[in-house]
Order: sequence, then C-alpha cells, then structure tokens
Amino acid sequence: MYIGIVVGSVVATRKSDELVGKKLLIVQKVNPKDESLGTLEVAVDSVGAGKGEYVLVTQGEPAMYVFETSTSCIDAAIIGIVDSMEVS
Amino acid sequence: MYIGIVVGSVVATRKSDELVGKKLLIVQKVNPKDESLGTLEVAVDSVGAGKGEYVLVTQGEPAMYVFETSTSCIDAAIIGIVDSMEVS
Amino acid sequence: MYIGIVVGSVVATRKSDELVGKKLLIVQKVNPKDESLGTLEVAVDSVGAGKGEYVLVTQGEPAMYVFETSTSCIDAAIIGIVDSMEVS
Amino acid sequence: MYIGIVVGSVVATRKSDELVGKKLLIVQKVNPKDESLGTLEVAVDSVGAGKGEYVLVTQGEPAMYVFETSTSCIDAAIIGIVDSMEVS
Amino acid sequence: MYIGIVVGSVVATRKSDELVGKKLLIVQKVNPKDESLGTLEVAVDSVGAGKGEYVLVTQGEPAMYVFETSTSCIDAAIIGIVDSMEVS
Repeated sequence: MYIGIVVGSVVATRKSDELVGKKLLIVQKVNPKDESLGTLEVAVDSVGAGKGEYVLVTQGEPAMYVFETSTSCIDAAIIGIVDSMEVS
Repeated sequence: MYIGIVVGSVVATRKSDELVGKKLLIVQKVNPKDESLGTLEVAVDSVGAGKGEYVLVTQGEPAMYVFETSTSCIDAAIIGIVDSMEVS
Repeated sequence: MYIGIVVGSVVATRKSDELVGKKLLIVQKVNPKDESLGTLEVAVDSVGAGKGEYVLVTQGEPAMYVFETSTSCIDAAIIGIVDSMEVS
Repeated sequence: MYIGIVVGSVVATRKSDELVGKKLLIVQKVNPKDESLGTLEVAVDSVGAGKGEYVLVTQGEPAMYVFETSTSCIDAAIIGIVDSMEVS
Repeated sequence: MYIGIVVGSVVATRKSDELVGKKLLIVQKVNPKDESLGTLEVAVDSVGAGKGEYVLVTQGEPAMYVFETSTSCIDAAIIGIVDSMEVS
C-alpha cells in the first residue's frame, strides 16, 4: 500500500455499474516529508475519506476485494485513514 | 484508475477471440493540467467512449471483469467518461 | 495492452511444463512514431505472430487466460497482430 | 519479491476490517550495497519483523494470500526476515 | 517474462511456510547486450537454476501458479533457463 493525500474528486455520469454510488477520489502519493511522488491516481473510497486527509491506498487485484463483489473493475481503493506515521 | 484522453484506435484482424467485436482505443494518460504522462496504452472500451473524451481507465486483473467473462485476456479497460474533475 | 514489435525469440530447453510447445518471442514496446520504449519483454505468442510484426501484448494475470489452462505461469502474451493504428 | 529495510510504522484507526489487528510497517527497498531504491511502501507484517530488520516483501495478488482469507485488500506483505544474502 | 542473470541468493530462517524448502535466488534483469536493467529481484527457483545462468522470470499472480499450491505468496519465479536468444 502507499500513503497519499486526497487532492480532489472526479465526476463521471457514464461509467461501469460497479462504480455507481461510489466516491471517486484523486490521490497524490507523498513521502513522509510531504513531497509529491509520481502521478495522480483515482481511487474508490471505502472508509469515508475526505479532501486533505492522508490515506492508505491499495492497488491491483486486492482493490477488487474492498467492496461487496469479487468481480469488481476497481484497481485502486482507499482502505485506511492515516492518523500518524513514524519513520526514521 | 487513471484519467486519460482517447487519442486513437487500433485495427487488428488476427486477435484473441475475447477481443472480437470490441473497440480497441488508444489512451494517453494526462494530469489535471492536460499534460501527457507516460506512454500510450491500448484499452478496451466498455462505456461508448470516443476520440477526444477524457476517460477513466482500469488496469490489470480488474480490467478482466469489465466484460461478460471472467477469463478475459484484457488488461486495460475504459470504465467511465469523465464529466469533470476538481483538484486543488 | 501495449503495442510492440517482435524483435527476436528465446530458446529454453529446461522450463516450466506450461511453456512446452509455445513460442517465446521477444517484444520491444514502441510508440506510434516507431520509437522504442522501455525494455524488452518475453511474451508467449497466441496468434501466429512473426518477427517484424506489430503486435498487441497483454500483461499480468490476464495473460494467464490466453491459453487453455487458467493456472498458467505466463505473465505476458501476444493477443493480436496490429493491421493499422490511427493516432492524433 | 524485493529486499527492504523496515524504517517505520503507520497508525490508522479508521481502516478496512482486513487490516484490524495487523502491523502496518513502512519499508524502504534497498540494494545489496544498502542504498535506498524507489519510494517507501506500507506492507503488512506476517513474520514478526521489527524496525531496522531486512525483510522480504511480496506485492500484488500474492500478498493477499499471506493471511487467513483469500479476499484480502492487502497488496504488500512482509513474508521473510533476511538473515544474509550473497551477491556477486 | 523478462530475461535475467542469477547473481546471488538469500537466506531467511523466519519466513512464510510457502517459502520453506525453496531456493530464493537474486536475479538481475539484463538486455541482450548483457547490460543490467533496473533493480535486483528475489525470485523462487522452479527449474534448478544456478548462479551465472540466464533465466526467464515471471512476475505477479502468474508466479503463484508455478508451485503446487494456488494460494502462494510468491510474486516472482524462475520458470526457464535460457539456452540462447536471437534479437535483431
């Protein structure tokens, strides 16, 4: 998983049925010094994350299993809100 | 998922049965400032996307589940058309 | 999927049973201007591709499903021969 | 798998049920000369790893199978503690 | 799959049960000119590969299926020994 910050959201009317009713958030991966890393990703929220929060993002097939169905087309999901991290 | 813009299409007569009848679109990943990121990808359309549209692309195993069969060889699929995005 | 050009082949006598009888081709990813991108990949052919041809390559778990068995160790497969592409 | 060193940990109160009771460690990939490579990753510990230890990390779907359930949302797991490595 | 050269090995006493009795080899990806590419990877051997040999490595979920169980935590496996390759 990686740690990112929620920086925005996406509106899509025409989309896969699997995405209906789900919040599509835009996440920026960051390092512990809060520097941006890589490019933005659209992740589906599963924990009630909001803009500006630090979140834990899972990618690939594991992201499929975050929601009720195991045949989801979702390849990135927010699975935690980071309260604190300690790195040395 | 990432946000990209549809920039073209591919014609392939000899191909996997799974691809028959499906639209193979070429997608360029972009950032919110509309700058191109990385290399082009060929994604299978599932939402009626057309050239010039901003789309949501899923990759890897989750892309397999976009279509009727769960044993697809598809590793990238367009699963949404982006109406708007808000990033700060 | 990505578009590549078949640039060579690999001979391996000692190998997984899953690979026996299959053609192991070396593919170079290219962009529409025919410039090479990234490093070479060994992909298993499923459509009768030959050297010099432009092909469509799928990667990861979806590549497992290209062949008869769903428990294959194959992580890259050629699933189409590109007749033409149109990019703008 | 890659070899990394455990450099920290993450606290997340609001998170997927799958993560409850699991140790979320921050891992830095390193090369045999102990130089840092790439960005940090959050991996779930399965072997009792602690800070400063060299560990073996698996990624993607294989990480899902490290724990009791096969429908986990975990995409990175520590599956070994490196006693020694020999590279030439 | 990619082609690499076996450059070393890893000893890990404390590890996932899935890894017990398996040879953990360190592989360096190379190109046909024998130049090193990217970072080292730890791959589980399935074909009796030894140090200095050119091997074929599969990654991700397909690597899980190289061994007897389909619930393996292995994300990289050596599935062939390269006798020769021809690239132009």
